[in-house]
This record gives sequence, structure tokens and C-alpha cells, in this order.
Amino acid sequence: MKHTREACLIADQQDPLAGFRQRFDLPANTIYLDGNSLGVLPKGALERSQQVITREWGHDLIRSWNTAGWFDMPTRLGDKLAPLLGADPGETVVTDTTSLNLFKALAAALRIQRQAHPERKVILSERDNFPTDLYMIQGMIEFLQQGYELRLIDEALPLEQALDDKVAVLLLSHVNYRTGYLYDMAAVTHSAHQCGALAIWDLAHAAGALQVDLNGADADFAVGCTYKYLNGGPGSPAFIWVAPRHQNAFWQPLSGWWGHAKPFEMATDYAPAQGIRRFLCGTQPIVSLALLECGLDVAREVDSQQLRAKSLALTDLFIELVEQRCGGHPLTLITPREHVRRGSHVSFRHPQGFAVMQALIANGVIGDYREPEVLRFGVTPLYLSHADIWDAVEILREILDSGSWDRPEFHRRGAVT
Amino acid sequence: MKHTREACLIADQQDPLAGFRQRFDLPANTIYLDGNSLGVLPKGALERSQQVITREWGHDLIRSWNTAGWFDMPTRLGDKLAPLLGADPGETVVTDTTSLNLFKALAAALRIQRQAHPERKVILSERDNFPTDLYMIQGMIEFLQQGYELRLIDEALPLEQALDDKVAVLLLSHVNYRTGYLYDMAAVTHSAHQCGALAIWDLAHAAGALQVDLNGADADFAVGCTYKYLNGGPGSPAFIWVAPRHQNAFWQPLSGWWGHAKPFEMATDYAPAQGIRRFLCGTQPIVSLALLECGLDVAREVDSQQLRAKSLALTDLFIELVEQRCGGHPLTLITPREHVRRGSHVSFRHPQGFAVMQALIANGVIGDYREPEVLRFGVTPLYLSHADIWDAVEILREILDSGSWDRPEFHRRGAVT
Repeated sequence: MKHTREACLIADQQDPLAGFRQRFDLPANTIYLDGNSLGVLPKGALERSQQVITREWGHDLIRSWNTAGWFDMPTRLGDKLAPLLGADPGETVVTDTTSLNLFKALAAALRIQRQAHPERKVILSERDNFPTDLYMIQGMIEFLQQGYELRLIDEALPLEQALDDKVAVLLLSHVNYRTGYLYDMAAVTHSAHQCGALAIWDLAHAAGALQVDLNGADADFAVGCTYKYLNGGPGSPAFIWVAPRHQNAFWQPLSGWWGHAKPFEMATDYAPAQGIRRFLCGTQPIVSLALLECGLDVAREVDSQQLRAKSLALTDLFIELVEQRCGGHPLTLITPREHVRRGSHVSFRHPQGFAVMQALIANGVIGDYREPEVLRFGVTPLYLSHADIWDAVEILREILDSGSWDRPEFHRRGAVT
Repeated sequence: MKHTREACLIADQQDPLAGFRQRFDLPANTIYLDGNSLGVLPKGALERSQQVITREWGHDLIRSWNTAGWFDMPTRLGDKLAPLLGADPGETVVTDTTSLNLFKALAAALRIQRQAHPERKVILSERDNFPTDLYMIQGMIEFLQQGYELRLIDEALPLEQALDDKVAVLLLSHVNYRTGYLYDMAAVTHSAHQCGALAIWDLAHAAGALQVDLNGADADFAVGCTYKYLNGGPGSPAFIWVAPRHQNAFWQPLSGWWGHAKPFEMATDYAPAQGIRRFLCGTQPIVSLALLECGLDVAREVDSQQLRAKSLALTDLFIELVEQRCGGHPLTLITPREHVRRGSHVSFRHPQGFAVMQALIANGVIGDYREPEVLRFGVTPLYLSHADIWDAVEILREILDSGSWDRPEFHRRGAVT
């Protein structure tokens, strides 16, 4: 199909989600294709933060733990998030970080398996998984010293072959952070269960980007972050979901007072709360939680089918435009073309990917660069338009055609991101 | 000494720290004696949060990880906090929660001891320690299944007797959350070392309340929270300090990507950063960190000797006034009278402590109640005056003399705090 900017504008007029753009404060003269790294600012967030800081903290002070509902925020926000994950109330809490929640889930899964299949010592993940997932597994193995080992799926070892009767736990990202590859959660979870393994899913690049169906897939545990497609703000607390059948199986080892059955009785012995609360540990950053609630409140209003349809339309458009208009340049698509295997971002390799991304950013198209050589473009259906995609690709084309990316300042490596 | 309100006003006029009260927004018609549970709002905090939310997040978005210094906040804030702890730069990070940081410290200490003294299996703490410290120890013991046990100091088992050659780690709170008892950190750490144990200190009720001297005491690890005397805001991130000699000894098991030597190389294998950064795990809540920085910036301006002198003067005054003016009532001081053994809060038991505290709160004196029967009053030298103490005790006296605490609404137990 031959695309034109006019056709993009017409598609935007027909977009049922177009109104959501008005719910966010977007920077001027910028096409923001990095909402899968840090989402944008919901319009109500500043006012809500002022209320929390001035009235709840400044004026009501300690009483706000009760009167402003601070104490229940992790479960209340978890229940608000649940429909986006295919979860029921009481199954999710918003707390801590993705890495820490992964530790809790992995600890619980290993303990369950220690009883069911004590001989299983393999934790199976993917070489191309987001590194912190692998690092947390390695940290636990190193600490436990109980003979566990990490096995990694890669091109030489596909999932079907790797999943054998040594595997205790399978830990995968639903959407790959680099390529955007989307696993079939139900099928993979089924394979894991068939083999006697438990399945933990990292939803960092899925939650808020597409409808997840944890209960439908019969998943065991899931974790994820809220500062990407859920627009919770920088470093907003993460979440953990635990299938009801596993919730009361085991104390997770990060067993702080917030997970105690009666935290204010100040008992000497830990007694875990029933249900998902036992996956809490310590006191949470309330202002950051309040900001996240603003993002969740927008996300909950979205029709998930419309969200997915627009996400696929925009990522299709992006791929087709790049291939049509930047065809002479050494760009290699690493994101699946198949809809059922694609998340909501698009990545191309380019031998000078780092410099090309710096040039894009200097020209108002914010994506990000991921090692090795990867240009990654987050496509967030809530606040991007078809015309944005057209314009972004035009800027990419100009940069590539003119060679303007090849300036010294675009090759200079910064500290981070 | 016979006190009068006039004498209190004169003392306030001579108070070298009196000006700090103007640095905070304090609620009207309230005497806030709960700053040891949740500190008050620094005046610059609202504006700083607006800057972070509107400009750094809303406008600059992902670039702020570099341009606004978000990525370095845990170490930068740690270095700002360090002088208050008797620590040097590069020894402290602000991150996660006290409970989680305790897990990291305990894991590291146990691993060090596993090599030095593998036969030592006792983790020694105190029955009256803040429960989450005990719960985290219990969670780790339960998870490791390596024969560790928790031993608790109490009236039947004093420290000198409990500290034997089975002890791997001693974990104590510098100031007891209930009684305000202040341990001699240097002497106790020395005893632990003499016995071959490592010492971890929980500074939750000490940091910002009095000068701590971690390096002077030769401590091994310390953790603590920032939302009490440091006025960081509700649930502001906690801190961990690690003696330089232990920093590179071991990966702590919560080994997420923020603690990696090169987090953005996206390597498959964890390689811990050198130094204190390896005690980081995942992405931190930036807005809550920014608010905390406002509290730290005030705390750093305070002369620590003046702080301690005023803290002791106010807690002395409180104790003497209660004993002089409420003498006929069944109040029992549980806070040490001896200055060198007292933190910065004062606690009395009263058989109807819960109802008395609710009556105090209804009359504008905010303290808190802790099981069993304890009225706890936080005395924060930065924003309380001698006259505040006088007025608070007068209100307590009126409530006790009139019996007005004995109303049904004051006996009704709320959900939390």
C-alpha cells in the first residue's frame, strides 16, 4: 500500500482513540517515540501531586495513612491495574521495583517446586531477555548455593528443546524489550505446565500496550513496570501478580512488615497476610504512587481492542514507511511482521544506529538506542497519531539521505540511556 | 527545676535553631509530636516537585535521566546524607526501603561470615526491635534453609550473654522505636567484633535526630529511613551504608541492573559495580527522591551539636513537665533518663494509652500510639519549640485531669497507625 501524509491525516480523523492525546501534556515540536521507556505526563498529575504534597502530607501529615488511603494504595492501584492484565481483584499489588518483584516471584516459584519437583534445578530464561531479569536470577542462584542453574534460550537452543524435565521455572518477557517479539503467553505457559515447570512473565513492555490475559493463559506469576505504557512517571512503583492458587503457598523472603497479617500489632514473629498482600515488604513512596494513579485512571478508560488495533496499524505504518522511503539505507527490521508476534514498538538495526538515533533526537524525534546497533521506536497508541508516524519517518529519511547523522557530536557516547 | 511557660518562651528566644521552623510548612493549631513517624513538609518541596513533574518529566522526558541527573540521584543523595551518619562520600546510597536494604546488608554479612566463620549460624537481634527487622531476618532464614537461627536479646537474655561464638551477625536499632533507648554504637560494635560477629545498625530513629558516627564506631553495615527526622515525605526511599572494607566483598542477591558495572551495555551476565553502587537494584521513584532532597538540604545545614543539645533539652523538658504536672496519673516513663542512652522521642505507658492518644490528637497534639499501651512523642528539634512542649503537656494534663479521654470515640480502633 502506498501511504501519503493526507491518508495519515484522514486515518487520524477516524481514530476512535484520538481524543486521548488531549489527556496528556506533550512537549511541543517533538515526536515522542520513547513512551516504552518513559511514558508521558497525564494532565491531572501535577494537580494530584500538589494535593498529596500540600494537603495530605503538609497539612494532614501522619493521619493521611488512614484518611487519604495511603496504606491501601498498593492494593487499590493493583486492583485498578488488574483489568489490563486479565487479572481479578485481589491478585495484584503495586509496589517496589520490577527487579524486586521478580525476586519475590522467583523465590515463591522455587519454593513451590522444591516440594513438587525437588530434583529440578534449572531456571529457564532467554539470552535476549531484559538483563535485569537475568541478573536477578543470577543473584538468587549465587546466594542460595543450592545447585540451581540458569539456562538460556537462544538461536542455538530454542524453547521447545530447552524446556525439559530439569526446568523448575520458566521466566520470559511477554514482549521483548529490544525486538518487540510477543510470546504467545497461553501456549508457552501450557508447554511449561505440561513439562512440570512454573511460568513467570515479565510484562514491562506489555502492560498498557496490549491486553494481557494472565488468568486466561493460566500463568503462575507476573511482574512489570508502570512508567512505560502506563504513564506512571519516572521510576513509578512496579507491580506483581500472583495466581490465587499460589498466593498462600509460601512466605516470599522479602517479608517486611507491610506483608504481615497484622502489621500494627508489632508482633515479634512474621505471620504473612493472606492473599496478595504478603507480596508487600516495606513503606512505599506515596507521591510516586499517587502520580501513577493518574496514569492508571487514563489507561483504564481505553477500549483494549481499539488500543491493539491502533498499535498494530501504527507499527504497520511505521514499518511500511521506513521500507518504502528509506529503502536504500542499511536498515534491518528486527521486529516481527506477524501481528500476533508483535508488541507495540518497532526496532531496526543500522550499523551506525547510535549516531542515527542522536541525529533523530536532535531533530525532535525521540526514540532510543539499544545495544547492539538497534534503533528502537515505541509506538504508544494513546497519544501518537498516524501523522506523527509519517513525520517521524520523513525526518529519519532526511537524516539518512543527507548523511547528517555523521557528525562528531552524534557519535559521542553519553553517560546513560 | 520548676518550669513555666514564660521560661519556655525565653528559652525559645535563645534557641540557635529557632530559625529552622520557618523552613517548613507546619499545620496551624497543631503541635506535631510525630515527626519520628512522618516528618513535615520542607517549604521548597512543592516547587521542586513541580519542576520535576512539569519540566523534567513532562517536557524533557527520557532525556532527564542524563540532563536532570536522575540516574545519579541515589549516590548523590547518599553523599548528601553521609555527613549526618559519620560516613564518607561513596559509602551510602538512597534507594528502595529500609526492609529491602536490610536484606541486602544481611545477605552480604552472612556471605562474608560464611567464609570467615562458617560454623556461626546465629543472627542476633532484640525482641523489642522494630518488627520489620525481625521479619526480614526470619524471611531470609526460612528461604535459605541453611540452619540459621534468630536469637533475641530481652530481659532474660542480655546482650553480653547473648553475644557468643555462635553469632554471625548482630542487628540492632541504634534508637529503639518504642522506648527511645539509644545504644552505644561504638561499644556494642566493638563487642561484636571482639566476638567475631559483624554489626548491622538500623538508623531509622537516629538519622537526622542525632549525629551518627558509623566510621568512628567501625560499624559494618547500616540502613535507615528518610521520612522521619529527614523530612523526605511519605515513603521516601531509604538508605544503605556499607563500610568500604565490605563493599566489594560479595554480590548482594538483589542484584538488578542498577547495580551492574555497565548497566547500559545490556550484558547477559551480572557484573557488580565497584563500590556502593552494587547495593542498588532497580529504577527508583524519582519524584519521591527529589522531594527527599529538599529535606536533606535543610538537615545538612544544621549544627549537629546544637541539634543534639536542643533534642535533649526538649526531651528533658517533656519528661520533667509530665512528671510535675501529670503526677497523679498512671504514666510510666519507658524512655531512658540518662542522656547518653536517649534518642529523640519520649514514651510513657498508660493503661489507656490508646484512648489518651486519640484524645490528644483530637485536641491538636499529634503523637502516636504503639502497642502495648505506649504514648510516643517524637521531639524534633528543627521545628519544635520549648513552648510547644509546654503547651502539649498542658493539653495532656487537661485530658487526664478531666477524664475527657474516656469517650467511646477515643476507644474505637482505626485501621492503621
